[in-house]
Amino acid sequence: MNLKDKVAVIGTGCCKFGENYHQSIEDMVVDAANEAYADAGVGPQDIQAAWVGTMASGSAGVALADPLKLFNIPITRVENYCASGMDAFRNACMAVAAGMYDVVLALGFEKLRDSGQRGLGAAASHPHPVIGYGTTAPTLFALAATRYFKTYGIGKDALAKVAIKNHHNGTMSPKAHFQMEVTEEQVLNAPLICSPLGLFDCCPTTDGAAAVVVCSVQAAKRFRPDALAVRGIGLAVTSGEPYMKPNFAYTGFPATAMAAQSAYEQAGITARDVDLAEVHDCFTITEILNYEDLGFCARGEGAHFVADGRAAIGGETPVNPSGGLKSFGHPVGATGIRMIYEVSQHLWNKAGARQVKNAEIGLAHNLGGPGSVGCVTILSN
Amino acid sequence: MNLKDKVAVIGTGCCKFGENYHQSIEDMVVDAANEAYADAGVGPQDIQAAWVGTMASGSAGVALADPLKLFNIPITRVENYCASGMDAFRNACMAVAAGMYDVVLALGFEKLRDSGQRGLGAAASHPHPVIGYGTTAPTLFALAATRYFKTYGIGKDALAKVAIKNHHNGTMSPKAHFQMEVTEEQVLNAPLICSPLGLFDCCPTTDGAAAVVVCSVQAAKRFRPDALAVRGIGLAVTSGEPYMKPNFAYTGFPATAMAAQSAYEQAGITARDVDLAEVHDCFTITEILNYEDLGFCARGEGAHFVADGRAAIGGETPVNPSGGLKSFGHPVGATGIRMIYEVSQHLWNKAGARQVKNAEIGLAHNLGGPGSVGCVTILSN
Repeated sequence: MNLKDKVAVIGTGCCKFGENYHQSIEDMVVDAANEAYADAGVGPQDIQAAWVGTMASGSAGVALADPLKLFNIPITRVENYCASGMDAFRNACMAVAAGMYDVVLALGFEKLRDSGQRGLGAAASHPHPVIGYGTTAPTLFALAATRYFKTYGIGKDALAKVAIKNHHNGTMSPKAHFQMEVTEEQVLNAPLICSPLGLFDCCPTTDGAAAVVVCSVQAAKRFRPDALAVRGIGLAVTSGEPYMKPNFAYTGFPATAMAAQSAYEQAGITARDVDLAEVHDCFTITEILNYEDLGFCARGEGAHFVADGRAAIGGETPVNPSGGLKSFGHPVGATGIRMIYEVSQHLWNKAGARQVKNAEIGLAHNLGGPGSVGCVTILSN
Repeated sequence: MNLKDKVAVIGTGCCKFGENYHQSIEDMVVDAANEAYADAGVGPQDIQAAWVGTMASGSAGVALADPLKLFNIPITRVENYCASGMDAFRNACMAVAAGMYDVVLALGFEKLRDSGQRGLGAAASHPHPVIGYGTTAPTLFALAATRYFKTYGIGKDALAKVAIKNHHNGTMSPKAHFQMEVTEEQVLNAPLICSPLGLFDCCPTTDGAAAVVVCSVQAAKRFRPDALAVRGIGLAVTSGEPYMKPNFAYTGFPATAMAAQSAYEQAGITARDVDLAEVHDCFTITEILNYEDLGFCARGEGAHFVADGRAAIGGETPVNPSGGLKSFGHPVGATGIRMIYEVSQHLWNKAGARQVKNAEIGLAHNLGGPGSVGCVTILSN
């Protein structure tokens, strides 16, 4: 099965991420969709079906028909923890690959700052048992950090390198939640959230929405000559394995590795061929584990990979040129689609000051739930 | 796009519906999946991807990996109001049609009796505005009944015919929530829920789960010679139109009519070719409107269609031989898949006392949200 012969991306959009108290969900989604439509040269009347990724906003698919002016077509809500947006994109791509539709919309959003009942706790009403036991995201990823430190003999300063890089990239990313540099001293002295993770090791709580217009390869020619190829999408759910298996090493997430393997195989490439990657740095330790799980470097090399500048813009494999979840923010359902937006900006050479030069192949990666959902998408020119 | 050349159903399963206080969600889902696996001659190790339809149980996709023994494969949760289960099936079918997988699982469930925070109110955290205005399902469908009565000069006794038929069918349906006949006197004298709808005009609050194994046509031959063809699936979201458009007649749901038109076109059939139908009788009035929206009879003929026995088993187009939502129950996310289970029982000639003779083409229909989501699936031998 070769997606690239069948499925293309012809437009992407993203609203300004941040504390968007002044915007409703509808406002943000319309901002993102309108930008994607304009980018693709389509209008709502061209959209034949839509997929909406959101973790916390139940029944949003139907509710968005009015603001998006999408009437009388299929709209489906997809939910898959932090991979909700990317899984919405995946289902949109498969529907186009099946020949059911030519032009469809995939979008993702989350409103977290003023969510109240719509918050994440309420959303995971039948959560994975690991979460049911009372853990939180910081506690789970702190375990991974502690184990990684012990296994490879490194310390908190290794994590700080990720925060420094991603905040630096964020200063060149106008739609990111934060545009500010951070110093190693700031990161290391920040208040502890869950030892060893401090405030600057954690991504912020952010509102946002992003959208992508997916199109059959054949129809894409009508809209733009430089449509992007969807080279591969892998999704793997490992369930309780990462944290419940007695022999789990805590130094990587098998869901990421399996999703990446599937995506690389579909795309016919290896990790070495990736020119830039947007990866799921919900915590600084996660990005280090992502490098290794995605195959950008060997096991145990992750801390050096960032410290040596190999993950920087201009480095061997630029990771999170957008600023990542760390600086761009992480409105759960939006993030996967926002990453596809960012990758498209580089492949279309529109990324401004943060542009990765000669980018031809880009990767986007989500890690969801208690480390149990991995999703990887590969796009190319 | 012809689904039938690409996608087949090779096994279906359904747990006993009812007040399943003795079962967890996991218990019900495992019951349903195991029956579908046995029916298809597959095991969990054969499943390459899964879709889970549920309205109220956030993050259930990942949580079900352990009880279903589905490790390291994609699992996606789909939510689309009362069409959540059928839309999960739809996305599963498109993924198989795309050539991404050969054997996949679609399942749906809902636990409503003891749901607490998991209940439907909490689930629709970003609901359609019509629901946000404080309406409930009985109030919305009562409006339709009142308008239908006024337009066609009929009364409550017309609705009672639906309840009597579906409860009669339910007596032959061992997995239905209720196995009991009701009389016209009982129905007409039942406590009012929302005038003119009485207790027996409303479907019950039920727990349940159902599952279906979807397979590529090519691979299906390995498993069984009598796999069912997926002839067409239509989904239409009309948003606020039904209840917010000033000129909406309240005597039908455009979402159903559009979804049916799409499914009939894909299948290359008309309503006359349908040998049996499972339709969304959330209320008795809804089934009468469904007859007309699905094209089983002309506008205004719905009350006569049931009163004259044309919708009975043995009639012109048997509708809800299972007992329908009215008697089988309506665990929201389960219902669409449960309907596909029922249709399969008739096409495979396994429906026992309620068997529709010589059934070759079956239709399943969901209506969701404030009448704004219509989904129609057509299967055949």
